[in-house]
Amino acid sequence: MTLNAEPEEVQARFEELDVLEAEFENVELELIRKSNELNAPLWQERAELVAKIPHFWTLVFEQAPTEFDSFILPSDAQIFAECFETLEVTRFEIDDPKGSPRSVLIKFGFSDNEYFENKVLEKKFWFRKSKDWEGLVSEPVKIDWKKGKDPTEGLSDAAFDLFQARKKSAKSANGSSKSKDSELPEYKKLVSMIEESTEASPSFFAWFGFVSDYRWVSAEESEQTAKEDAERIARLKCGEKVEDDEDEDEDQTDYQETEVYPQGGEIATLIAEDLWPSAIKYFKSAHEQDGDDLSEIGVEDMDEDENESGDEIDIRGLVGKGRTSSPPNKKQRKA
Amino acid sequence: MTLNAEPEEVQARFEELDVLEAEFENVELELIRKSNELNAPLWQERAELVAKIPHFWTLVFEQAPTEFDSFILPSDAQIFAECFETLEVTRFEIDDPKGSPRSVLIKFGFSDNEYFENKVLEKKFWFRKSKDWEGLVSEPVKIDWKKGKDPTEGLSDAAFDLFQARKKSAKSANGSSKSKDSELPEYKKLVSMIEESTEASPSFFAWFGFVSDYRWVSAEESEQTAKEDAERIARLKCGEKVEDDEDEDEDQTDYQETEVYPQGGEIATLIAEDLWPSAIKYFKSAHEQDGDDLSEIGVEDMDEDENESGDEIDIRGLVGKGRTSSPPNKKQRKA
Repeated sequence: MTLNAEPEEVQARFEELDVLEAEFENVELELIRKSNELNAPLWQERAELVAKIPHFWTLVFEQAPTEFDSFILPSDAQIFAECFETLEVTRFEIDDPKGSPRSVLIKFGFSDNEYFENKVLEKKFWFRKSKDWEGLVSEPVKIDWKKGKDPTEGLSDAAFDLFQARKKSAKSANGSSKSKDSELPEYKKLVSMIEESTEASPSFFAWFGFVSDYRWVSAEESEQTAKEDAERIARLKCGEKVEDDEDEDEDQTDYQETEVYPQGGEIATLIAEDLWPSAIKYFKSAHEQDGDDLSEIGVEDMDEDENESGDEIDIRGLVGKGRTSSPPNKKQRKA
Repeated sequence: MTLNAEPEEVQARFEELDVLEAEFENVELELIRKSNELNAPLWQERAELVAKIPHFWTLVFEQAPTEFDSFILPSDAQIFAECFETLEVTRFEIDDPKGSPRSVLIKFGFSDNEYFENKVLEKKFWFRKSKDWEGLVSEPVKIDWKKGKDPTEGLSDAAFDLFQARKKSAKSANGSSKSKDSELPEYKKLVSMIEESTEASPSFFAWFGFVSDYRWVSAEESEQTAKEDAERIARLKCGEKVEDDEDEDEDQTDYQETEVYPQGGEIATLIAEDLWPSAIKYFKSAHEQDGDDLSEIGVEDMDEDENESGDEIDIRGLVGKGRTSSPPNKKQRKA
């Protein structure tokens, strides 16, 4: 390990890594497309099958790994146990040359319930790039809460309202709108609601109001960034010198001031990449446990509620026994 | 959600889920093969490129996510910083019909150092199945420690010795050997070493002695299990009734009594599925940080050591600047 590297050499290494990373990314996108193609018919089969299994998705959510579980408050679990019926994850830009195979739509189906009017809550996440960030951005989803039943205590409404106000303001005052953002009454309202919130973590339902881990990035900005990135890589491949614009002013705006669910992108990823592909595994592990554990997220409560209303549901009876008993240690995460 | 499910109906649903899960698994294996095929030339390119970048893999390990980082003790970090040169991950059973694309070989390359004689430490993990478990199993690797330099304090040697003794005893007394396992002096020695160990967590190098999260499963047993599983799925697909043998006696042996590194399978998975594919990303994030942070795992110490011995290495100089500065929030895990 002898090295007396000149700055130029170091720079060259970094450029080579950038080119290689772009090639890895292309392979990754191809694999997402391949995965989607091969799994799509199985997901369809699974949807038909689990439609016959009550509480399938509630039990999957219950058995989710801790990193996901910690986002579901007991009050959220109660709502899920009562009315959560279907989950669907789709890659809605999988073949869109201007979109990304990483973009994902997460669709929840609910039965009639005492909390909200919606039968379906659909949240779209677009994978987008800005000069200094890439990740999932989303528009807040309107939840029609029944009176006094909103576990987010107005957060999801306020997030939705701000997003609409921003759209309107951008339309009416194109260009100069950016500086006015924090002047919007909806902005001030949301910021003070977030500041005043005493809860350690908000209800899971506030996640429907999520916008971004960083800031909203439009389709146009993302396309432009992707184009510039591709051009830069193409020039590096040809051995051209490419100037970095790293000296640009850093953007100091605190975009997260109005984010109702800062870990929203992480949750979308956990649902799309873990709960969704591994749903059968999690469902089975719910059934391999003792019946007592099933009450953990309120399934038992729901059970009682439904018994009161005349239906006969016995979660314990449904549970049956797993095909095999678990070994002393937790099963190996598959390599 | 009206349901008055009979036990037979519930059983039928579970069998359908089993069939579907087997199909998902086949897709998953095909995707691992596809990923290997598409990425192999890029991994080759990367190896050639990073050979020119000193401390590449040490910096990757340093930037690994917390779940991995917690396994590297400060004393391990010191060793890595001083002599860790290359990492290679290969799927050595990718096209073996009797093996599994999930099996993985992890190969560490080291420069001359004061700790051990080995230039290469190669650990093989076979993905195997028993009736009640599936996961990675591995044979302990012999590390030729220099005198007084073993950070595992004899654990890695003891794990290696027990494995050899078991092989020998299985050969000499085929069949009856199983009951004698705990009578082996190497068994007793290892158990008492593990019991007496006062460290909260052992050195990372004890991981080279890892055998299994559950117990050792031989190639023969795994093949037999895979065959029986496949037959069961085939019969279920034909609509045949298949008896479950869930009433079999549960095996109460505490196989983990002699496991020197109970989370060894998890580490193998983290290296193979996270550090290895995302190495460039982690390396770059090391360089986007302030120079000060680089000392975290002892790189600075090593730096000083090497300066003493006359080489000129300036990690800070190497670091340069990342192409772009990080946004206020951590980058989105890609969906």
